[in-house]
Amino acid sequence: MIEALIRTIPDYPKPGVQFRDITTLLQDRQGFAAAIDALSLHYTSHAFDKVLAIESRGFIVGAALAIQLGAGFVPARKPGKLPAATISQSYTLEYGMDALELHKDAIQPGERVLLVDDLIATGGTAMAAVALVRQLGGLLAHATFIVDLPDLGGMQRLQSAGIRGFALCQFEGH
Amino acid sequence: MIEALIRTIPDYPKPGVQFRDITTLLQDRQGFAAAIDALSLHYTSHAFDKVLAIESRGFIVGAALAIQLGAGFVPARKPGKLPAATISQSYTLEYGMDALELHKDAIQPGERVLLVDDLIATGGTAMAAVALVRQLGGLLAHATFIVDLPDLGGMQRLQSAGIRGFALCQFEGH
Repeated sequence: MIEALIRTIPDYPKPGVQFRDITTLLQDRQGFAAAIDALSLHYTSHAFDKVLAIESRGFIVGAALAIQLGAGFVPARKPGKLPAATISQSYTLEYGMDALELHKDAIQPGERVLLVDDLIATGGTAMAAVALVRQLGGLLAHATFIVDLPDLGGMQRLQSAGIRGFALCQFEGH
Repeated sequence: MIEALIRTIPDYPKPGVQFRDITTLLQDRQGFAAAIDALSLHYTSHAFDKVLAIESRGFIVGAALAIQLGAGFVPARKPGKLPAATISQSYTLEYGMDALELHKDAIQPGERVLLVDDLIATGGTAMAAVALVRQLGGLLAHATFIVDLPDLGGMQRLQSAGIRGFALCQFEGH
């Protein structure tokens, strides 16, 4: 059901890319609730102090999941968006570089953190978030997504870093 | 309790502005849950088909609230971020202009929509979102926020447009 509610937009944002658009899932009240329930159920035997979500579609999934899991919510944002003292981690894009920032006081040493984003592709952004959490002394062993694009290898990169990834559905190709 | 968890950052993003930072509320598991519960309780006698949230801090509040209210979630985004066909509404900033976009198929005529953002100041962004929802035939009579800056008059602008606003706390000044 969840997979069927995700819309594919061909050649977006550029020719050859099949964009997986979760807005059609989110705007369906039953679909959105089913997605958050399914992610939440996957972690019933775990306890997390914080959900760390990546700007900005990750905020949607992460905030709903944080409430359902009883965890605090921490945003990882693009440079210059967080108002207090931050740490920063750059990462490689297909063309060029970008960076993620985290408030220095967002995570305390030893806190158990669940990483959340809407989609995992190559895992570059997720790995930057992992580095930030670990720099603050947080324990990050789980990461969760609505969509996984397994051909791009992001879940394997997470696994190499000791992180167990979970996604509600997989799509082939880019 | 909620007010006490909001951090004030002086002179951000520019001298003279007192920035009200809700990340300290969000990262507190009890505070975040209490805030979403309080917003949700305020609307127990209402029914909404969709929560419309404004990018990107609004996504955090809106997604959690949509799940709690059993509504679908619709993002209003900055130009160029939504992959399918959109409508657009520009609005005035202190210096210059910006715009918000909505997927054309995000709201059906007659659907009841709750507008959500983290903070209301002058109400310029909120009024742009209202215009978009009404252009699609949605019914928008309620808007909700964590923080209201009443000196900036946003709630009054909403009221003039027939919208009842609600916020969990008020702060004086900018």
